[in-house]
Amino acid sequence: MDGISQPSPINEEAASKFRAHRNRSLDTQEYLSGIFSGNRTILSKAITLVESSLPSHQAQAQEIIAECLKLSTETGSHTKGHTSHANSIRIGITGVPGVGKSTFIEALGIHLTSKGHKLAVLAIDPSSSRSKGSILGDKTRMEELSVDANAFIRPSPASGSLGGVARKTRETIVLCEAAGFDVIFVETVGVGQSETTVHSMVDFFLLLMLAGAGDELQGIKRGIIEMADAIVINKADGDNLAKAKIARVEYANALHLFPPPGSGWIPEADICSARTKMGIDHVWELIMEHRKVTGETGFFHLRRMEQNRQVFRETIEAGLHDHFFNRSEISHHIASLETEIMNGRLNPYQAAQEMLEKYYRMF
Amino acid sequence: MDGISQPSPINEEAASKFRAHRNRSLDTQEYLSGIFSGNRTILSKAITLVESSLPSHQAQAQEIIAECLKLSTETGSHTKGHTSHANSIRIGITGVPGVGKSTFIEALGIHLTSKGHKLAVLAIDPSSSRSKGSILGDKTRMEELSVDANAFIRPSPASGSLGGVARKTRETIVLCEAAGFDVIFVETVGVGQSETTVHSMVDFFLLLMLAGAGDELQGIKRGIIEMADAIVINKADGDNLAKAKIARVEYANALHLFPPPGSGWIPEADICSARTKMGIDHVWELIMEHRKVTGETGFFHLRRMEQNRQVFRETIEAGLHDHFFNRSEISHHIASLETEIMNGRLNPYQAAQEMLEKYYRMF
Repeated sequence: MDGISQPSPINEEAASKFRAHRNRSLDTQEYLSGIFSGNRTILSKAITLVESSLPSHQAQAQEIIAECLKLSTETGSHTKGHTSHANSIRIGITGVPGVGKSTFIEALGIHLTSKGHKLAVLAIDPSSSRSKGSILGDKTRMEELSVDANAFIRPSPASGSLGGVARKTRETIVLCEAAGFDVIFVETVGVGQSETTVHSMVDFFLLLMLAGAGDELQGIKRGIIEMADAIVINKADGDNLAKAKIARVEYANALHLFPPPGSGWIPEADICSARTKMGIDHVWELIMEHRKVTGETGFFHLRRMEQNRQVFRETIEAGLHDHFFNRSEISHHIASLETEIMNGRLNPYQAAQEMLEKYYRMF
Repeated sequence: MDGISQPSPINEEAASKFRAHRNRSLDTQEYLSGIFSGNRTILSKAITLVESSLPSHQAQAQEIIAECLKLSTETGSHTKGHTSHANSIRIGITGVPGVGKSTFIEALGIHLTSKGHKLAVLAIDPSSSRSKGSILGDKTRMEELSVDANAFIRPSPASGSLGGVARKTRETIVLCEAAGFDVIFVETVGVGQSETTVHSMVDFFLLLMLAGAGDELQGIKRGIIEMADAIVINKADGDNLAKAKIARVEYANALHLFPPPGSGWIPEADICSARTKMGIDHVWELIMEHRKVTGETGFFHLRRMEQNRQVFRETIEAGLHDHFFNRSEISHHIASLETEIMNGRLNPYQAAQEMLEKYYRMF
């Protein structure tokens, strides 16, 4: 049996060469030309690189991102047949579980690709390391979109902190835009804090809701409603339609309680049915109207620049963190101090101080 | 007129001496003996020191905290007539606006001080810089408690980030316990992320809810219910009582959906009326039962030690941040880079990298 299942030496060599070729790391130029030509396999590989925490991967990822960002600052518009990020629109989509987010994304997404847009769907889900199932589930639920040549669906990175996930999603947006995707959806799995994070990386923040799900304003906290550029009531079909229309008026009134965010835009409430496609085209018109208004007032640009300033601060924080925790002397010492702390033999404030002093002496 | 309103030289000298005495900074020993003797004025001053961002204040604050922490590790119990933190209990209290949190805290607080406990009420409110009114309002709403000699109410520090506020609240807990407060309430103004933060610094996490406020599980996200050691339905009085009893059963069932957190404790649902005081004593019995059970399983201690480990990590992060941002060369350079970023002339990732390299060359 052994002899039969063994490949002949010559086949093994070819197979090994093939594997080496397939798995070899690309150089930065290969990544960039792949991304710029809209090669989805290379785009995916580049995102994986961005998501990696290996210092060497991070360094290369930063080179790639810098080149992708240059596109828009150099030309401000189309280059080499693909759209730079100055022409993209980034849309945050949030809503409680059960609101029909996947169906909505599928319906709006298909509407957009049929109009010639290229769409990337990203997700922010800081809990994904715990419940990976739901995200895979989401992807398979978007049946049409997941096989659409003009759509690119990428689940949330399954790693640690919200801050870390957010950073990687921001960088993924840059790559997707450089690859010619002109509409970016950032979906959040509603968990309180992730909405704020998504809001900090998009041009338009869309809150999906349901009619008659108890007290109209209970489900979503006031702070989230204040952030919304539009509230869209989904599942406005069949027996639900009348309720949805009533809810629309109530939400429209609620939105008027909040002062307009200095953008020239007054947040709107709307209804749709992702199932029957009713109102989906109107949601897109609303987003385009917002784009036009905030473009004229300058708010669109200002919001992005403010977000860049935040990226700057966060990248510094992340850099300080990594520089510290990536040192092996540090991680060893941390492990032993943590044991002391867990045994109640060491005060955590002093332990931290000791650790920091040790670190600064290393330079 | 001028001549008349001027104080005589000799009075002015005395007044100036008095002001200098009142405002002079205390040395660490004065702070410590004040805190250990339960002097509320000095405790307040020490908390203000902890909340200060001045490096010299921070250094002194750390000395004080280290001494306060020593109390419990040295003796494990009472020293010099006051309670060390090993005998304290820290209770997080959360719930949506309108749930009657202040009235509940007042009712449970008075119940505790009448039984001889000393109670400190702290608040976590990362939005307090925006809406200071609500906290002052809270304090005045706790009419009886705010004049109770055995209660100490301290509003949330009105500063920046949630992380910063949390750090200062943790340190305030240490000071209050060293000053003999054996029950600590940490109240959160429900804004999604702050509940998780409060949970990370308490022994018992209590979620206040209302009956019949729409869909029973809509108001508070699943993640928050999962963290609760008890759900207490407030306003169970008058016409509301029957509804509250039904809701109690529903919540009890919901709590059973979540596996017990490995503590030996099964989260309970209960009803009370802070207005009529019905059930308030039972809430305290519940907390004491939890203390007993988790003390026996060792979970009480383990949870605190885990929290200490988190404090260790967070103190390091904060230290890295401060060390960087407190340098004047850095802050000047940051300001100019941010202008470039806001003008769209600089990519935030590269700017951050440049800034970090400059920093590491400084050592």
